Formats: sequence, structure tokens, C-alpha cells
Amino acid sequence: MDVPVALLGYGTVGSAVDRLLREQAADIERATGHRLRVVRALVRDPDKEHGDAPVTTDFGEIRDDPSIAVVAEVMGGLEPAGGYVLELLRAGKPVVTANKQLVARRGAELFAAAAESGVQLRFEASVCGAIPVIKVLREALVVSNVHRVLGIVNGTTNFVLTEMERGASYDEALAEAQRLGFAEADPTEDVSGQDAAAKMAILATVAFGSRVTLEDVVCEGLERVTPADVDAAREMDMVVRLVGAATLVDGSVDVRVRPALVDRAHPLAGVDGAFNAVMLQGDAIREITLEGPGAGGLETASAVVADMVTIVGTTGTGFLQNDACWRELARLPEGEIASPFYVRVEVADRPGVLALVAFRLAARGVSIARLVQHQSEQNATLHIVTHEAPEGRLRDALDEIDALQETRSKASALPVISDRGVAGLGWR
Amino acid sequence: MDVPVALLGYGTVGSAVDRLLREQAADIERATGHRLRVVRALVRDPDKEHGDAPVTTDFGEIRDDPSIAVVAEVMGGLEPAGGYVLELLRAGKPVVTANKQLVARRGAELFAAAAESGVQLRFEASVCGAIPVIKVLREALVVSNVHRVLGIVNGTTNFVLTEMERGASYDEALAEAQRLGFAEADPTEDVSGQDAAAKMAILATVAFGSRVTLEDVVCEGLERVTPADVDAAREMDMVVRLVGAATLVDGSVDVRVRPALVDRAHPLAGVDGAFNAVMLQGDAIREITLEGPGAGGLETASAVVADMVTIVGTTGTGFLQNDACWRELARLPEGEIASPFYVRVEVADRPGVLALVAFRLAARGVSIARLVQHQSEQNATLHIVTHEAPEGRLRDALDEIDALQETRSKASALPVISDRGVAGLGWR
Repeated sequence: MDVPVALLGYGTVGSAVDRLLREQAADIERATGHRLRVVRALVRDPDKEHGDAPVTTDFGEIRDDPSIAVVAEVMGGLEPAGGYVLELLRAGKPVVTANKQLVARRGAELFAAAAESGVQLRFEASVCGAIPVIKVLREALVVSNVHRVLGIVNGTTNFVLTEMERGASYDEALAEAQRLGFAEADPTEDVSGQDAAAKMAILATVAFGSRVTLEDVVCEGLERVTPADVDAAREMDMVVRLVGAATLVDGSVDVRVRPALVDRAHPLAGVDGAFNAVMLQGDAIREITLEGPGAGGLETASAVVADMVTIVGTTGTGFLQNDACWRELARLPEGEIASPFYVRVEVADRPGVLALVAFRLAARGVSIARLVQHQSEQNATLHIVTHEAPEGRLRDALDEIDALQETRSKASALPVISDRGVAGLGWR
Repeated sequence: MDVPVALLGYGTVGSAVDRLLREQAADIERATGHRLRVVRALVRDPDKEHGDAPVTTDFGEIRDDPSIAVVAEVMGGLEPAGGYVLELLRAGKPVVTANKQLVARRGAELFAAAAESGVQLRFEASVCGAIPVIKVLREALVVSNVHRVLGIVNGTTNFVLTEMERGASYDEALAEAQRLGFAEADPTEDVSGQDAAAKMAILATVAFGSRVTLEDVVCEGLERVTPADVDAAREMDMVVRLVGAATLVDGSVDVRVRPALVDRAHPLAGVDGAFNAVMLQGDAIREITLEGPGAGGLETASAVVADMVTIVGTTGTGFLQNDACWRELARLPEGEIASPFYVRVEVADRPGVLALVAFRLAARGVSIARLVQHQSEQNATLHIVTHEAPEGRLRDALDEIDALQETRSKASALPVISDRGVAGLGWR
């Protein structure tokens, strides 16, 4: 059966969607019985080169064409993309979007509109490019009670940190990422953690069935990471990575993105350069890790096409459609999430200082698992890995340590992701 | 809506399916609108403890009950399971099976029966426990042209090889696996590679859309792996693993299971103990790796339940149902598949012997990438890693090397899996 579809946008992703639908038409028809064909593509400048694509600059031509069965939004940005998607859903057209900022910021509104019209809104391509993590969470793990999602979901920062391990400075690594096309000219959204935060908001929403928006995600980028952290991590057989963690604890949700030390034996530690990986931990499945290209025009387009095909194939069945949210979970109060931590603090190199630091930690119930001391002229740097402790208690101890006369520079702390496995709260 | 379902078998997996359907009933209903309930479970001994399950010893009670919407075959074995599944499909009942031997050996017959009746036969749980690799291949990667599947799909051999790296002998490692319940009392099916071969047959069938049966899989187990191989691998920063590889080259298929050396930086090298991992390489996706528990009652049950839910949710849509086979691809002639290889050969420790060996390889077009020589009394052991070469040419060169007067023991060769990435034929 011939199924007319439309695209909003005809850039890298849009043209790749069009190409895949043409080149793989036979595969799609065999799998689904349908042949999808782009009959209209919304573009800004119709005079630019768009191959054979039937372009238009008039959104109404797509919204008001009753023959169009599915629309893929691959233009990006919050507006006009958001308004278009809303209009399409209200007009009863199913939509596939690759737009993570849109889903993370306006998901509630969009899914409400979809539900009201009884049409699907799918968004696999909005998170981690070609990795089918939304499909796996919603369809394969329906009885798994997923309670933790750990992810390396930003390729740019992953590449930068990998380069820093090899001895590059932060600036050199970022310049190299830009040269290779992994990083934008303005890399703020990547290095600040905002890109990862949007993805983690979407993943947490789907995994826990409760709306998590971008504003709910506690986010820290690479700003605080120093070459000293990277070196100390290497010395302890760990790597520094920007890690997203979404945790469901006793009916409360905690979602955060920040640099963490990851043990080399952990599946997330080996994720290469611009690849992404997501680890899902749940009752029935223990843990499943998915790894693959997190970006790229063709990779993203393959996820868009899979969603379009699924919509055409399942319309009318009510099977796993639309909003995954069915409850409102509280946010876990700041400081309650527990984790092992890596602490670095510079102190005066005098007898008894280490005991003072250890005492402040112990007084808050934070016990030390490993300690390395580096001498430098008058001072010593303590590198400490703690056992699992609630972050609030660690912060209190660090405030007291910062106040010590013997402390030379503010203590810095990063969570540590070490064992695999399901136990406990926290980041493990 | 209340949906009565039945189980064939009520052992570890069957009872876990029943438990998940009860405990997760609300989750399932939210996702699908249906409430699945086990109304009949076929058992051999009705006097054994089966909790509240409504057991029967009469298969006809399940086959002939028109209210039963889906049946899960979780009894294992070829017969009577195979006959029961066939009868159910012919009677118009959708079936979910966790039985890899059944799907790998009798897939053609079973899927034909399903197609004839217009009902679904799903089999996610037959491969790699909780890892949703069938769903990902069939639904998410529909336009990805997957041309290579690499897998560590047998937990027992993975555990044994991991232990051997830590210094255990093969017998000690196997005994430990048995003690921990990873290996059966009779481990033949695991260590011979037959278990992995059945899984690779299923994966290749789905990935390439052409029937691959167990008999088509070239299979070698752990028999030939020596502690010397494991040591040599470690010295080269690699590990020995039992690797399944399914490759589509120019319209021909090659599927094999055998020990291989895997570079430590490769995603498959880090797979822990009894976990499984599958790497899918394709045009649009580059490569996606899925890792998770490859066995376990609850893990397998979660995959069975996901399939049952999918059947109930998609019946009548024609969406990605039944047999994935749509073409008949030839088998690649033996020896044509290319790969880098690790070669170990013991030779007389005399000047010029290394040159003789290198010459035989070069004469067949096999070039040497790395070479380590170990002295021992009168002899020397050469450890060679070649560049990529067709296996047939390597075999011919090794035959000639074995025939040399200076050769002290037959040369042994294992494929090497090194770079990630998509290029080339072979195992890379």
C-alpha cells in the first residue's frame, strides 16, 4: 500500500530520511506491507538544492493535505518546529520527531495534544541517534521495573575527555573535536551538559513513567574538570566521563548530569569517542547496555524511519502509543542520593593534616576506601575515594574541610561509578 | 480487557512468566490496555508444587480452549515441545517460544504453519535471555542493511575463558562454572559451541532474511584453546573468547562460532562472566552493541512476557509478524571469509626458520602485522598476527608450514577481532 508522508526540514537528517525511504522501499514493504513516499518537504529556501524532493515553503500544504499519513519533524529548534508539531497533532496527523529540546521542554503539551487527537507522537531519534533505547524501554522492558538509567549521551564531551586522557588540554581537545565536526562552533550546549540533560530528561520520563523536564535535571558540565582529575583517575584505573544518571528511589526521582569517575571495568568506560551508551538497570533484567553512534545524519534518519514505519504498522491498535507518563513522582531532595565519591583537596604538608581531613569525613559517616597523597613543595594533594555515602553528608564534611586552616584550596568532589550491578541507591 | 493465556511448562521460566504477569499486571495494562492471566499450564507431574497455577497434564485442554489468546512454550527440548507448537499454530493460536534449539532446527516448518494460520510466532527469549536483540533487528533496524552480527552468546564459555585468563586451568574453570550454576552437569552443548551455534543461526536468519539452520553453522568449541593461547593473547593485550560471527558478503552468508582473539579495546572484550553481547553492523547505523544477562529464569521470562504483550497488542495489524525470511541466500564457500589471524607454531630454534615461515605466508599473500618469538630449550614458539587475509589462503600456507622439516608441532590459527568499524569482509 502506498503511504504518502511529509518532512518538516530537508537538511542532513531530512534528506537522509528521504533517501532511506527510497532506497529501502522494498525492505520496508516486505516488513510492513507499506511503501512510504515523501510527497512534501517543508524548507526555508526553495531555491537551494533539494534533489527531486517536492519542496514547499507553506506549512499549510502539509497540515491540510488529508492524504499525508505521517509527518517527520527534522528541522530542529524550538520554534517554529514546536508550533508546527502541535498544529499537526491537533489536525490528527501522527508525528515523528528527532528534536530532543522540543520533547524535553514541551513534552507534556505535545503528548496531551496527541492523546486528544488519538494519534501517535514518536521520538526515538531525539535520544542517542541510532540506538533504539526508547523502543527497548517501552516495548521490551515493559515488565522490568527499570529503576536506574546511566548514560554517556553526549559524544562531544566524551571525545574531549578521551583526548584529555591522552594528554591534550581541554582547549586542544575541544578544538580537535570542532575540527573533526563532533563539536559545534559554539559548543556551549554540549560542554555545559545541557544537551545530555535534555536526553536524560526524556529517558527518565520513559523509564519511570513520570514527566521529567529539562528544568528538573541537575546539570554540571566539564567546567570544573581539571587535568589533575583526569590524571588521578588514570592512576586509580578509572576514567573521567560526563555521565547522566536517572534514579528512582522509593517513589522519588533524581536525574542529573555531571562529570564522574568511571571504573575501567565498567561497560560505560569503554565507550569510544563520539559513541553513546545507555545502561538500563531493572528488577527482571539486571542490566542491559546499549551502545552505538549517538549522532549523525544517516544514523538519526534510520531511527526516524523506524518510527514512521512503526506508526504506519500499528495505527489503530492502541499498542504502546503516545505518552509513557502515568504518574507524578516527587523529586528526591537534593543531597539524598548516595554514591561513592572521589575527593581531591590540597592541604598544608604537615603531620596530622590527613588525620584532620579523615576525621571530618568520619564524623559525617563518610568512610574512606582509598587514599593517594601527592607531595608538591609546601603542600600535599589528597586523592580520596570514599565508600557509598549520601551526597549531602559528603558536602557537609567538605564544607568543614574547606574551613580548616590547613586547607590550601577548596575540596572538589566527583561521583564514582564502579561496580556493575543493581544494589543500592546512588550512582553505582 | 482480560486476556487468558497458557503456558507449556511450569519450571524456572514458566513460573517466572506467571509471576511477572501477576505482579506487573498494572504495568502491562497501562502499556497495552490488556490484562494477561495464565488460565492453564501444562506440566508433567501435577502433584509437584506449582503454587496457585491451574495446571493440567492434557495438552488438548490448551489447544482446544478457544478462550486462550496466546500460548508460551517454556518447556524446552525438541519433543514434545516442537509437536505442541506446531499443533497450536495450526489450530490458530499465536505462540511465544524460548526454545532456541527448536527455532534453530525447525524454524522453517514452524513459521510456515504460523503464516498459513495467520498467527504470530515470536521467539525473543530464544536468543540471549533478556537482551531484546530480535526486536531491535526486526523493528528498529528495518532500514539498516545489517551485514554483520558478532556475538558472545554463551555465558558458560565466556565465564570459563575469563577464569582461564586469571590463571585457572580449563578443568578448574569449568568446575567453578558448574559449582556456580553457570554450566550444566553435562556441559557439552556449551563448550562444543552448539548452544552458541543455535543462537547465531537464529540471529543470522533474522538479520539477513534468509533461513540459516543449525547445520549451516560452522562450529568449533573450546577444545583447541590452550593456556598458551590465553597467555599469548594477554601479552598482545587481547583476550580469547568464543565468538559467533554471521556475515553477509556479496549476497552470500557465512555463519560460524569459534574461539577468537579479541582486542581489549573492542566492545565485546569487556563482556563479563555469564553476560552476553551482540554487535550489529549495518549501513545506516554503523554498529550497535547490546549487552546484558544471556540467561536466567526471570530474565528469560521478561522477554517471553514482552513477546506475549506484543502479540496481544499487534494482532491483526500485519506489523512485522512471523517469518523474517524472504530470500534464499547462498552459503559463502569455505575459506573465502577474510580476517586477521593469530598463528602459533613451534619450530626448531635455528637461524633462518622464521624467514622460512614468513616466506610461506608471503607466498600466499598473507602479510605479518606482529610477531613475538618465545624460546624454550631446543625450540622456539612463534606468535604471529597477520593482516586481513582470506582464511583459505592462510590454511594453505599453514599446511606448507606444517610440512616443513623445522616445524615441531602443527600450526594453530585463531581469527582476531580488533578494530571496531565496518570496513572489509571478515571478522573485524
